[in-house]
Amino acid sequence: MTTTQISGVTVATQANVYFDGKCVSHSLTLADGTKQSVGVVLPAELTFKTGAAEIMECVAGGCEYRLAGSTEWKRSGPGERFSVAANSSFDIRVSEAYHYICHFG
Amino acid sequence: MTTTQISGVTVATQANVYFDGKCVSHSLTLADGTKQSVGVVLPAELTFKTGAAEIMECVAGGCEYRLAGSTEWKRSGPGERFSVAANSSFDIRVSEAYHYICHFG
Repeated sequence: MTTTQISGVTVATQANVYFDGKCVSHSLTLADGTKQSVGVVLPAELTFKTGAAEIMECVAGGCEYRLAGSTEWKRSGPGERFSVAANSSFDIRVSEAYHYICHFG
Repeated sequence: MTTTQISGVTVATQANVYFDGKCVSHSLTLADGTKQSVGVVLPAELTFKTGAAEIMECVAGGCEYRLAGSTEWKRSGPGERFSVAANSSFDIRVSEAYHYICHFG
């Protein structure tokens, strides 16, 4: 079951642009104060660092990811999630596009 | 006065990706049913076609734009808007990034 929309949110109008636009997201604040973002990673191989812990939820497309300290690439597709520890990192490779919700904390 | 956030919206989680990612937006539905999108145009020179009429509101960065049938390039920066007729087009050139809200209809 993929999450196609999120209701009752406040959206920051200025996008977050990472890696020369290979990743673009918009920050959301939910009604209960929870912070999330919705974004897309375009075809690329990138390394993301985390501050807070994150859960990455795929809503369309897909990616392969490799958590810090792991040698194994895993796939993540629509409706699937993976977790990343705080103050860590993960590698991601995308061949088409990876549309996601990032849940923080 | 720039619009930094929009509250009480439903956001579509899958991004709209145009021109190989030179333009990325997320679609919004406001509480009253109004449709908008928030997006960013990265450095590029592009031509956008309209279906419905659009008002483009700059929230950060800036662009130059040229409406269909015009020879004149105009600048649009934070807090400024320009209108595009339905079933028309406009050229846009961006040297850093142009963050916008698109108001439809």
